[in-house]
Amino acid sequence: MNNPITEKLHVDELIKMALAEDISNEDVTTNAVMPEYKKGTVDLICKQEGVICGLGVFARAFTLLDPATEVKLFKEDGDEVKKGELLATVTGDIRVLLSGERTALNYLQRMSGIATATRRVVKLLEGCKTRLLDTRKTTPNMRIFEKYAVKVGGGVNHRYNLSDGILLKDNHIGAAGSIAAAVKAAREYAPFVRKVEVEVENLDMCRQALDAGADIIMLDNMSVEDMSAAVKMIGGRAVTEISGNVTAQTIPSIKKVGADFVSSGAITHSAGIMDLSLKNLHPLD
Amino acid sequence: MNNPITEKLHVDELIKMALAEDISNEDVTTNAVMPEYKKGTVDLICKQEGVICGLGVFARAFTLLDPATEVKLFKEDGDEVKKGELLATVTGDIRVLLSGERTALNYLQRMSGIATATRRVVKLLEGCKTRLLDTRKTTPNMRIFEKYAVKVGGGVNHRYNLSDGILLKDNHIGAAGSIAAAVKAAREYAPFVRKVEVEVENLDMCRQALDAGADIIMLDNMSVEDMSAAVKMIGGRAVTEISGNVTAQTIPSIKKVGADFVSSGAITHSAGIMDLSLKNLHPLD
Amino acid sequence: MNNPITEKLHVDELIKMALAEDISNEDVTTNAVMPEYKKGTVDLICKQEGVICGLGVFARAFTLLDPATEVKLFKEDGDEVKKGELLATVTGDIRVLLSGERTALNYLQRMSGIATATRRVVKLLEGCKTRLLDTRKTTPNMRIFEKYAVKVGGGVNHRYNLSDGILLKDNHIGAAGSIAAAVKAAREYAPFVRKVEVEVENLDMCRQALDAGADIIMLDNMSVEDMSAAVKMIGGRAVTEISGNVTAQTIPSIKKVGADFVSSGAITHSAGIMDLSLKNLHPLD
Amino acid sequence: MNNPITEKLHVDELIKMALAEDISNEDVTTNAVMPEYKKGTVDLICKQEGVICGLGVFARAFTLLDPATEVKLFKEDGDEVKKGELLATVTGDIRVLLSGERTALNYLQRMSGIATATRRVVKLLEGCKTRLLDTRKTTPNMRIFEKYAVKVGGGVNHRYNLSDGILLKDNHIGAAGSIAAAVKAAREYAPFVRKVEVEVENLDMCRQALDAGADIIMLDNMSVEDMSAAVKMIGGRAVTEISGNVTAQTIPSIKKVGADFVSSGAITHSAGIMDLSLKNLHPLD
Amino acid sequence: MNNPITEKLHVDELIKMALAEDISNEDVTTNAVMPEYKKGTVDLICKQEGVICGLGVFARAFTLLDPATEVKLFKEDGDEVKKGELLATVTGDIRVLLSGERTALNYLQRMSGIATATRRVVKLLEGCKTRLLDTRKTTPNMRIFEKYAVKVGGGVNHRYNLSDGILLKDNHIGAAGSIAAAVKAAREYAPFVRKVEVEVENLDMCRQALDAGADIIMLDNMSVEDMSAAVKMIGGRAVTEISGNVTAQTIPSIKKVGADFVSSGAITHSAGIMDLSLKNLHPLD
Amino acid sequence: MNNPITEKLHVDELIKMALAEDISNEDVTTNAVMPEYKKGTVDLICKQEGVICGLGVFARAFTLLDPATEVKLFKEDGDEVKKGELLATVTGDIRVLLSGERTALNYLQRMSGIATATRRVVKLLEGCKTRLLDTRKTTPNMRIFEKYAVKVGGGVNHRYNLSDGILLKDNHIGAAGSIAAAVKAAREYAPFVRKVEVEVENLDMCRQALDAGADIIMLDNMSVEDMSAAVKMIGGRAVTEISGNVTAQTIPSIKKVGADFVSSGAITHSAGIMDLSLKNLHPLD
Repeated sequence: MNNPITEKLHVDELIKMALAEDISNEDVTTNAVMPEYKKGTVDLICKQEGVICGLGVFARAFTLLDPATEVKLFKEDGDEVKKGELLATVTGDIRVLLSGERTALNYLQRMSGIATATRRVVKLLEGCKTRLLDTRKTTPNMRIFEKYAVKVGGGVNHRYNLSDGILLKDNHIGAAGSIAAAVKAAREYAPFVRKVEVEVENLDMCRQALDAGADIIMLDNMSVEDMSAAVKMIGGRAVTEISGNVTAQTIPSIKKVGADFVSSGAITHSAGIMDLSLKNLHPLD
Repeated sequence: MNNPITEKLHVDELIKMALAEDISNEDVTTNAVMPEYKKGTVDLICKQEGVICGLGVFARAFTLLDPATEVKLFKEDGDEVKKGELLATVTGDIRVLLSGERTALNYLQRMSGIATATRRVVKLLEGCKTRLLDTRKTTPNMRIFEKYAVKVGGGVNHRYNLSDGILLKDNHIGAAGSIAAAVKAAREYAPFVRKVEVEVENLDMCRQALDAGADIIMLDNMSVEDMSAAVKMIGGRAVTEISGNVTAQTIPSIKKVGADFVSSGAITHSAGIMDLSLKNLHPLD
Repeated sequence: MNNPITEKLHVDELIKMALAEDISNEDVTTNAVMPEYKKGTVDLICKQEGVICGLGVFARAFTLLDPATEVKLFKEDGDEVKKGELLATVTGDIRVLLSGERTALNYLQRMSGIATATRRVVKLLEGCKTRLLDTRKTTPNMRIFEKYAVKVGGGVNHRYNLSDGILLKDNHIGAAGSIAAAVKAAREYAPFVRKVEVEVENLDMCRQALDAGADIIMLDNMSVEDMSAAVKMIGGRAVTEISGNVTAQTIPSIKKVGADFVSSGAITHSAGIMDLSLKNLHPLD
Repeated sequence: MNNPITEKLHVDELIKMALAEDISNEDVTTNAVMPEYKKGTVDLICKQEGVICGLGVFARAFTLLDPATEVKLFKEDGDEVKKGELLATVTGDIRVLLSGERTALNYLQRMSGIATATRRVVKLLEGCKTRLLDTRKTTPNMRIFEKYAVKVGGGVNHRYNLSDGILLKDNHIGAAGSIAAAVKAAREYAPFVRKVEVEVENLDMCRQALDAGADIIMLDNMSVEDMSAAVKMIGGRAVTEISGNVTAQTIPSIKKVGADFVSSGAITHSAGIMDLSLKNLHPLD
Repeated sequence: MNNPITEKLHVDELIKMALAEDISNEDVTTNAVMPEYKKGTVDLICKQEGVICGLGVFARAFTLLDPATEVKLFKEDGDEVKKGELLATVTGDIRVLLSGERTALNYLQRMSGIATATRRVVKLLEGCKTRLLDTRKTTPNMRIFEKYAVKVGGGVNHRYNLSDGILLKDNHIGAAGSIAAAVKAAREYAPFVRKVEVEVENLDMCRQALDAGADIIMLDNMSVEDMSAAVKMIGGRAVTEISGNVTAQTIPSIKKVGADFVSSGAITHSAGIMDLSLKNLHPLD
Repeated sequence: MNNPITEKLHVDELIKMALAEDISNEDVTTNAVMPEYKKGTVDLICKQEGVICGLGVFARAFTLLDPATEVKLFKEDGDEVKKGELLATVTGDIRVLLSGERTALNYLQRMSGIATATRRVVKLLEGCKTRLLDTRKTTPNMRIFEKYAVKVGGGVNHRYNLSDGILLKDNHIGAAGSIAAAVKAAREYAPFVRKVEVEVENLDMCRQALDAGADIIMLDNMSVEDMSAAVKMIGGRAVTEISGNVTAQTIPSIKKVGADFVSSGAITHSAGIMDLSLKNLHPLD
């Protein structure tokens, strides 16, 4: 992560849980053949082109097992890496290298997969003002890692969770009675630090949201024509977000709409991993 | 999960953590517009063909928020579902439906994605004796869910973690001095309840593993010809596992090898999700 | 709290910790004289005028010890109560009433003290548009309760914590080099869901914040005259917050400034408690 | 705290929870403007006369975020401090100074407020043998800090919680049938390490408690005359405690009673905070 | 335990941890052969004479797995039971009966072993005033259960832990400089609710402890003659405790000493278990 | 433990819990007489012959309180030690030595008791091929320590818990319908990494288990003659385990049976402790 102070409070606990998930009482194989400390080193090798992300988490998985482990990083989060490149070396008790390997890689591969998928979309969006947002469609208990990976990939974070952003969807609007009533309730409940976002499905709703003073208007499931009309109608009086279905095919149309943001769940929930491996483990004298 | 008793001990805690990740202090939108209890219902709709998995976890996300929530399931884990099908209804306090939605879906979509990917490979393997294994390449703090999804998809679970299975890789063998020495150390350390698996990279190592009395031999990174020769050499005296690179392209060759098992990391780490959504939320009188 | 769903995730754990703090292994007095279940009831009596707040938490302290405990509430959070009034009755195992009493009251008294102090200031502010904000000067591990009490008292919540709001203070500005640079960095880091607030100490800084496009400008430690000038300069282009030193003496001046908000740490950190007690415990047949 | 060994077991966890309460995922402001380590220092300045308390906890809030942080203390817990005095400096990663500031001060200000309030009463009691006790009217999840602050202020701790002291109140006496029966039950249940305290409301009950062999007798809600008579009647055969309503007005009368102890809830529950702040943060080269 | 309210706060967590220790992810045997709910019942049978203790904990192990489990108890904690007796039946989901069995019995057998060992010594002490105390020589994370078992067996609890009793041993005395100084320091540090106990090794130290006003004097490692002389010297002015080496052989001498208490570590640390088993599990229709 | 890496994940947490169990808020005696750091040292002395085990855990109890504590070990786990021998010295803050002593010894004494009891049986089994197994009859929340002690004593670990081994008992067999059906279900549910063990009570069941292809057959409650016949019948086609009742008296018969393993619950549940103590604590200059 980019701020190691945070790691003390949340990230460390999650990594420790993941290590304990993989070692519920002991690493029986390692204990059988390596009863004693032996110093060694291993290389982190890239096996697939992409954007590397999570090097700090990767390192932390080893240093949480043993603070004496030395991890040398030759890349930084966000760097584009190529197949065959040496990304890092990990040096320490070989038992640490073996017992921490899988957990360290499981984080690094997934985070790099997300950063890579994000960067790909960000590049496709180049040349227009529309920026890429993530969603809350993250893997349970992985949000802090996955939202960070989106940022590293060049994306922008939407609200972190239900506590730090207001997004009025159809059900909230239904409960309040109208868009105007929902926005009013939100402003009354949280008048100070929160922006109010409203999800709309057509031009009429868009107009209502605008009149109600929404800070952000999300255009959901609308045709490219309607979205373009909506953006024109809004005319900068609210921030605009296009929701969903961001693919290489749809991006050219999305770019024409001229919205401020477009959000994609796929960059987190279906990114797949980046192939990486620890190779060439050998003892040091 | 298929045994609700387990949920008390591990699964519940993980789901609660995921809910707290999404609601770090309150659901501000819901609290703004719905200060009071209101009963409602919502439909779980399939938006993409595949194998549904995680319905119990989906339900638990809501009942952990409020035990009075009723979840009616019209499908069972493992069923093949089609776009547009109604899979379940959730009925209760609308605030529960809204606050639990994302976490419930994040689990269900990922687990169904894995079950679907697994079933796809299992079907491709039909007609030969080789069965599909998972790996430890799971998402951190998701293993209990993801290994279950593999089983639901028709796959077989490899060891759960480093504590419940012995797998001697090149580094362990190096540390012990030879395959024979490594197997001997493993047998001495854990002579009773554990099988000993050895990873080999060529026919010579395979011969050594066989002579050392390995229970399982994993053929790693070998050509189809060598794997076939290895299986022949082993002749049923050890269980055989082919490791890695399982794709629609490679499966026909893999089937010819005649191994007992083939393992795939991709079914967990790169499955992508199944598209599902909660629709038609409406109040009940 | 106003949303019992949230209680499952955060509030319950904190109340259980508080109960365990008071009962580190057993309630030795109660166990000595009451080895068996005996049903009884006790009255919650107001001993000091004010705004009651925390009735749900009060009840939860008992029901967490024993879900069979019945708590009848005759008031709602936010009601103004008078000395001598009966606010609630608690009925159940007398051992629960005795063992839970102190923890239940410790929460209720503090939350009511804060709601009362808040209401007092809110009333003094009546007749002007300036609304009362809280701060992060809450008691450690009590924020969720104390911020709620402010809301019940009629105040408005500032950001919940460091994760859900941007507030650029002098040190942040110093690190960035200038107000303009700091606001730019904040917008780049979090361009979507967050408002950017800047703390200024004089009219020149205020002008810079305004030019930099701050969403909220906090006037810190400025004279009434300067604050009035600042509000005039801002002219509605940013939300305005006056910081600190809110007393009966200073409020008339504050009202003249015409800011949107004024924040007070004292309503949480120095409110004192409301005197309440459990009386008339007696067995039921 | 006066014993850093204890901190490992209880205090550290509570401080970490408080830090996580204030940083639920990241310090967004700091991360935006200070992406990199930068060394700096800040001064802890007293803004209000009183008794400083909690310097170890203050320091721990920073060192838990980063063990490399150096905290130089120029005062000790219990020292009387004056407005404008420099109490400490904190030197380290500026991000640590910013992210830990509020939590560190929230503890220190509250603990100092309690120590100050305690010292004030202790001074008023000078010249008589009666010593000041605290109660269990502490803020939830703050007891270990608040009881320590009472001690630093010159007060004496009553029982820590329900597990380590026997105090028979009217309801316990009612359940047992009589004072004699209640004391007998307590002695039987816990005959060894525990003193038995009885709360009495009049001279008759006091006589009964004395006859029953109570170790400590608490005089609750009695007139000064009756309390004086009670103390005379007891004649040193039991320790005596006066309960409640300790103010500058009542202390002269309380002193005349000649009891061993007087207890006050107000020193913990309504002390208010001591005003302190971190000033003059600046980078170091 | 004798107070189910306590269970909510400490005991439940420990039992859940013990269940999770035995089921780190699933009960693989039960899941293999019993995929579905099936109601059944099983008998708890005594296989060895002794004092039964821990029936509530035994029951809780099952009801924590599934609250619908019914446990009928035919004995109470403290009853003397005989080989072959039916002590309880457990009825519910057979999977619960199987998965909870070992943990439930591990608690019950150990607690009954301790209660039985305690009762044996208590009976040997009959006819003299000396009562049996336990020590802190309990199994880690089992103290709440083991101290309770001592009480059920007829013993008396010494201090629960280092926080709720003062016991000045040679090292504390050395640090303070003398017994008198140590007692004085203890009285100053904790003048109210705590008794002060001093450990002495000879008559001279005993005299010093007496003169210093110790509430309790522990006679450690002294001859029967010296202990008798010590008890005579003390003459009721302090409570007396004989420490250690309590066996059938030594008890007759111990009885002659006439001390108030004798403490034994063996009743907790070396009691061995009581043999119990679950038998006759069968399905119900 | 033999692998300090594991300690980070599970053992440390358990030791910290045990320390907190013994110090629920403070070590009041130590705090009273030793308010300041003072360096000292203490000797760990053997008071009873046996096999020492748990030296790492003993050391960890002190270093978790204060990492600066130095523990010098003169023996290794598994060494046979004699009364009077110096086993280790602990040097550091005297307050750490005093506050950690009881917890450190409670672990070490119990673990050494188990290692000693195990070694005793292992020696009695010398001269035959039958090796000693432990069971799941361990103390709750002590399994990781107790199973390790068995290994140090020369025994072999059976499955660690219900998650890592299949053992089909009569109830599982009943649920499946027959031994053949139960084994089949187990093989289907977990075909890869798990061995299948079947518990049989007579020769007929043994034959069925053999025919069903069980990997391990446990002979439960059978006569020596039947067990011998069973071992002959099995003829090496399955591993054989004799269950229960392992005493000095029964071992000669057990040795004649010729089974591969014999399991004993008594080595963990009724071993009693080894007597050890910390002596000669003295300050260092």
